[in-house]
Amino acid sequence: MEMNLFETIEGGVCAAAGFRAAGVYAGIKKSEKPEGNEIPVSSHKNDLGLIYSDHDCNTACVYTQNKVKGAPIIVTKRHLEKTGGKARAVIVNSKNANTCNADGVEKAEKMCDLLADAMGLESEQVLVASTGVIGQILPIEPIEKAIPQLAMSLCVSQHLEAAKAIMTTDTFPKEYAVTFEIDGKTCCMGGMAKGSGMIHPNMATTLNFITTDCSITTEMLQKALSEIVKITYNCLSIDGDTSTNDMVCLMSSGVCENKEITEEGEDFETFKKALYQVMANLTRMLAKDGEGASKLLTCICSGAPDLDTAIIVAKSVICSPLFKCAMFGSDANWGRILCAIGYAEADFDINKVGVTLSSSKGEIEVCRNGSGVDFSEEKAKEILLEDEIYINIDLHAGEAQATAWGCDLTYDYVKINGDYRS
Amino acid sequence: MEMNLFETIEGGVCAAAGFRAAGVYAGIKKSEKPEGNEIPVSSHKNDLGLIYSDHDCNTACVYTQNKVKGAPIIVTKRHLEKTGGKARAVIVNSKNANTCNADGVEKAEKMCDLLADAMGLESEQVLVASTGVIGQILPIEPIEKAIPQLAMSLCVSQHLEAAKAIMTTDTFPKEYAVTFEIDGKTCCMGGMAKGSGMIHPNMATTLNFITTDCSITTEMLQKALSEIVKITYNCLSIDGDTSTNDMVCLMSSGVCENKEITEEGEDFETFKKALYQVMANLTRMLAKDGEGASKLLTCICSGAPDLDTAIIVAKSVICSPLFKCAMFGSDANWGRILCAIGYAEADFDINKVGVTLSSSKGEIEVCRNGSGVDFSEEKAKEILLEDEIYINIDLHAGEAQATAWGCDLTYDYVKINGDYRS
Repeated sequence: MEMNLFETIEGGVCAAAGFRAAGVYAGIKKSEKPEGNEIPVSSHKNDLGLIYSDHDCNTACVYTQNKVKGAPIIVTKRHLEKTGGKARAVIVNSKNANTCNADGVEKAEKMCDLLADAMGLESEQVLVASTGVIGQILPIEPIEKAIPQLAMSLCVSQHLEAAKAIMTTDTFPKEYAVTFEIDGKTCCMGGMAKGSGMIHPNMATTLNFITTDCSITTEMLQKALSEIVKITYNCLSIDGDTSTNDMVCLMSSGVCENKEITEEGEDFETFKKALYQVMANLTRMLAKDGEGASKLLTCICSGAPDLDTAIIVAKSVICSPLFKCAMFGSDANWGRILCAIGYAEADFDINKVGVTLSSSKGEIEVCRNGSGVDFSEEKAKEILLEDEIYINIDLHAGEAQATAWGCDLTYDYVKINGDYRS
Repeated sequence: MEMNLFETIEGGVCAAAGFRAAGVYAGIKKSEKPEGNEIPVSSHKNDLGLIYSDHDCNTACVYTQNKVKGAPIIVTKRHLEKTGGKARAVIVNSKNANTCNADGVEKAEKMCDLLADAMGLESEQVLVASTGVIGQILPIEPIEKAIPQLAMSLCVSQHLEAAKAIMTTDTFPKEYAVTFEIDGKTCCMGGMAKGSGMIHPNMATTLNFITTDCSITTEMLQKALSEIVKITYNCLSIDGDTSTNDMVCLMSSGVCENKEITEEGEDFETFKKALYQVMANLTRMLAKDGEGASKLLTCICSGAPDLDTAIIVAKSVICSPLFKCAMFGSDANWGRILCAIGYAEADFDINKVGVTLSSSKGEIEVCRNGSGVDFSEEKAKEILLEDEIYINIDLHAGEAQATAWGCDLTYDYVKINGDYRS
């Protein structure tokens, strides 16, 4: 699928009509509790976010496959089951995952209750998500205290504050939005995402929220989401650790008043293309901002017999710690790429494989038919010193292609994670 | 299985009767070519090793499952097929993996030919192994030049030189040997192994050579090897990268003259226990010397419904980069352990899982029934500052148990691998 087909617009999760957002600093992490009643509205330390729709939204979600599931995952699932896939709001906090706590579900329900009360909604219309340290009791008081301010801040211009509120070790907020046409109507779709460690999505990814004003049934939303997750977030790996709190939530307000998409067809294809553009670009941002990353790595596997093979091979390379270290060192150690292709659990002839490396400085071929070819180490170094590197693999075994995104493994990854909790 | 049942002895791969070994510096890496004809016999830079048996040996091997296979793997397999599982010698080099080279198989055959000529053997009686950088042409000249000296150095006391010859980024040579009794005869078994990166064995591991004088058929040797590899080397992970050159080779000279082991029974059980002790201790050394490692991590999963589940869970924790970083930082971030248990592909109830952490400084419980329990952070820090840490997981779902070995993820891992080739 083409990555940048539609015009991009501003607005993040508020780009689509009918959505508002907010983000505030509640002081969820003990050591950061604000003095007295002072709660700064805008701060890079935002830790409580809200997405709100003026209308009932058809809503699709995918969740982590980790057996350990954050309490918010359990509550969100439960609420969507009760409402038959409808929601009005998502409340989300960072600094604490509310996972592996005996009172986790109770606290997650409480977050929904508090927001529902403040906004005049039913609890079941509220979804909830959390990210942060696993296994620490979630303090509900700072959240309770901050909710009025959160509600008051709700505004279409507050999307960036919401995007900031879900950041953990991210170095920049991640938003993306596009505009596209369906049934003669101009629709919008936008999203926000958080990184930046414990990222190796499996049927879902870290927290991602996408909103659209395009009218589409919950069933078709879910179908589009599952399909596009597979070739975007699920093709991303920062460190091979699948989070306990992964969740992608896609909400449609239907405000756009196009003829509702109820089945496959041209409109559905357009919708998926827009969704791909939003999700692929957010995925790319997540990879670029991977914990400690100095380089964005994009591995494109083409010539595969089928999509699954292409995905498995591209991800295998992106996940290899040795390859990631070589990229950190700008070392064209292509043997590590071949090694990672070789242990990918897929069926193809390794003796046909070709590999090139490229960046804005050019391209070099390093391997043909599974064996090395002579190349200029000097040219390779020049290419690999750039901060966006492409690894192009051709299996010469078919027509399928997939892209996987990742980043290099650096001293800073070790530094960040050697002392995360404190 | 008990790890230290039998008496340990000196002698490494020469502990068993009938085996001799040697290791020399041939200058296989271009930049290290010695001046003129000077070849130092003993050096930490040894790069060419030899194991030689005075008698025909029954020989079992397991190999990497990586699709990219080093040329020596192909040649060793071919030779053992030709001889029906008999061998007299193994020649092995470091500094170059002889993998992904168009002339790789030819060069590996040439190494066997050269050694066979020098020792008066058939080429097929010689096995070959290589380790080092992938995808660089193997220079045969330095090997050819060094073989006479290698042959002359053959001696039962040269086991350490051989162990040094297979080192890559290892910081110490790895040898282990035991003595045990079978059929009233005192048998010996010893081995050597190399680390220390690209280690995530799959049906085999990095280079390991084990010799015994116990009389046993090739078939039973293979059976014992496959069984014990599963619970030793295959339970080791340094970095999740499965090498292209993995090989474990187990040779029996039969010099001990016990009644040959031809079937299952008490003697075979004793043999397997000795093999476990040698292989588990070598595995432990490999983990301890993992690239950049500052801590040896041993994860014991008990209370599992079956052995496979125990292995999968223990390995999942040992492989988690986030957990490995937390151990580097001596941070009792047990949520990352639960997360890794949660994404292990096995079937059990996460809400029954208990976890304790221990070292020579004591033990603390950090998780019970899948949720956190209060513990002293001070005590936890004291325990985790040690350089050997045990992670004890109880699934409370059965009687099976397995151990996995690994190490922490440190700045030095990134440093070593950011610039390996140069």
